[in-house]
Amino acid sequence: MMARPRPVRPDENQQWTLAERPVGREVRKSDFKLVSNAVPDLAANELLIRTLYLSVAPVMRDYMLDGAGFEKPLAIGAVMRGRGVGIVIESRNANYAPGDIVQGKLGWQAYSISDGSPYYMMYKIQQRIAPLSTGIGVLGVTGFTSYLGLVDVGRFKPGDAVLVSGAAGGVGSSVGQVARSLGAGRIIGIAGSDEKCQLLVDKLGYDAAINYRTQDLGSHFSELMPNGFDVFFDNVGGTTLDTALLHMNKHARISLCGRISEYINNAEQPYALRNYQYIHKRYATLQAFFIYLLEADFPRAEAAMAAMIAKGHLTWTEDVL
Amino acid sequence: MMARPRPVRPDENQQWTLAERPVGREVRKSDFKLVSNAVPDLAANELLIRTLYLSVAPVMRDYMLDGAGFEKPLAIGAVMRGRGVGIVIESRNANYAPGDIVQGKLGWQAYSISDGSPYYMMYKIQQRIAPLSTGIGVLGVTGFTSYLGLVDVGRFKPGDAVLVSGAAGGVGSSVGQVARSLGAGRIIGIAGSDEKCQLLVDKLGYDAAINYRTQDLGSHFSELMPNGFDVFFDNVGGTTLDTALLHMNKHARISLCGRISEYINNAEQPYALRNYQYIHKRYATLQAFFIYLLEADFPRAEAAMAAMIAKGHLTWTEDVL
Repeated sequence: MMARPRPVRPDENQQWTLAERPVGREVRKSDFKLVSNAVPDLAANELLIRTLYLSVAPVMRDYMLDGAGFEKPLAIGAVMRGRGVGIVIESRNANYAPGDIVQGKLGWQAYSISDGSPYYMMYKIQQRIAPLSTGIGVLGVTGFTSYLGLVDVGRFKPGDAVLVSGAAGGVGSSVGQVARSLGAGRIIGIAGSDEKCQLLVDKLGYDAAINYRTQDLGSHFSELMPNGFDVFFDNVGGTTLDTALLHMNKHARISLCGRISEYINNAEQPYALRNYQYIHKRYATLQAFFIYLLEADFPRAEAAMAAMIAKGHLTWTEDVL
Repeated sequence: MMARPRPVRPDENQQWTLAERPVGREVRKSDFKLVSNAVPDLAANELLIRTLYLSVAPVMRDYMLDGAGFEKPLAIGAVMRGRGVGIVIESRNANYAPGDIVQGKLGWQAYSISDGSPYYMMYKIQQRIAPLSTGIGVLGVTGFTSYLGLVDVGRFKPGDAVLVSGAAGGVGSSVGQVARSLGAGRIIGIAGSDEKCQLLVDKLGYDAAINYRTQDLGSHFSELMPNGFDVFFDNVGGTTLDTALLHMNKHARISLCGRISEYINNAEQPYALRNYQYIHKRYATLQAFFIYLLEADFPRAEAAMAAMIAKGHLTWTEDVL
């Protein structure tokens, strides 16, 4: 057995900072500025992390804006915010030791310092079954969202008919596989192209898929789920949710993860849910969740997802650059 | 100790049957016909019950109509449907013995026969702390609705701010007291008259009450629950629910028991929920329930309600005729 070489403390840290707020839909390279700074000594309770992988997601454009969001807007000159996977190389925090692999809010920089407080959403990666890069994917918050949204929020039971919107997205593409692995009955996905629909059925555990751009949701729900769904993992909201309310089995649970279809609407004209009465008539549940508030359940989700990978029940795609 | 005299088997049964379906809002005496029939011998698994108390509720008019409801419409000539409390006087059912006190669907008759199957919603009354008539009230399905709707569906926790609509009704009038007994923070009721509001505050455990006919719900919610509610026990639906959605604390639970305000609307113009987006924004839950589907939990609810009565935490009013 070879001893792992002790990581050398870096002198310098390369950091991408916010130079300008984005204008229009595209983010420009000139919105960022690469700077170099010394790595400071650690204060009590701090740890130093070397970045291994960083996540890139559309939501990050929102971080760069000055508007209201889940978090405070980033200041001009601040290190760009983002989650990543890293290795602890120095620690003055009793909960972390050099060599620990963590995921959390590292920021777009080669080295980051954290005090392990909730702000950093730091989580020690336990599994060693899949590449560490999955710590920002199927074995990270994306995967935990699939698992906890289906099992905890959706109160999934074997045999359930499961409906998923945004089914080809980062979260949706593992919801179908998790449902399949846990013994679902029918699993139906909704996506926005024939190619995505084909992928859902061929690779991602779905029994059938509906292209919402070209196919009528209501008539396909009736045909594909004649008894209605038991769990609806909804990333979309709006008319998709409203139509689904007409196709619930008794005691159906809707796990409301996102409302993508509504985000582009004018906030002064919110979507009014016409069929909400069926929540009452079917004794159903509409429950929203925010994954970062379920942190206490992350280790259970990680273990469950790792077990599915070990059984060969879970595939994923990554773009690692 | 005196032996209870063995009940004598009756020869004749007096029964109120449905003579005509009601016309207009009022139920007429001529809609019913009193008949007398022999009490048949019991078949295997059957039990004979002497009626002690019968419940009368507005919903019973619906039983008399020919339209669709939770149950099959009553045939002309059939015994009027209704819940009651009775004593078993003969039994060929292993689960019931003479002397057992039961509540269930006895019908409007002096004696009823049941086979104990789910249709009869039969439940053996265990508590001996309150008058047996409460078996169709605070210690019956009405009380169980309050308890299970608040505790199980609403996931009530001590310290929670609780909002109740229809607060002076059969169910609502015990929800406030149950919440108080279990250690709620603020308890706010909504009712339709100043007299009812006064009753809520004076007798029924509420900290404050809002008269929805004369007071603005939104501004009173803001004033009375500056942090929003944690649990909303909603009997009303419609604009009351919609306004409440703007006043939820994070992770609020709405226990949807009824939608009284919508029942009079034209079914072709269902109420559209304008503020549903806040269910997502507050990571809240909207969960409907039907008490007769929670039967397995009745004994726990009865024990909890009886314990509150023993502590003097629960008062109730009854009209016993």
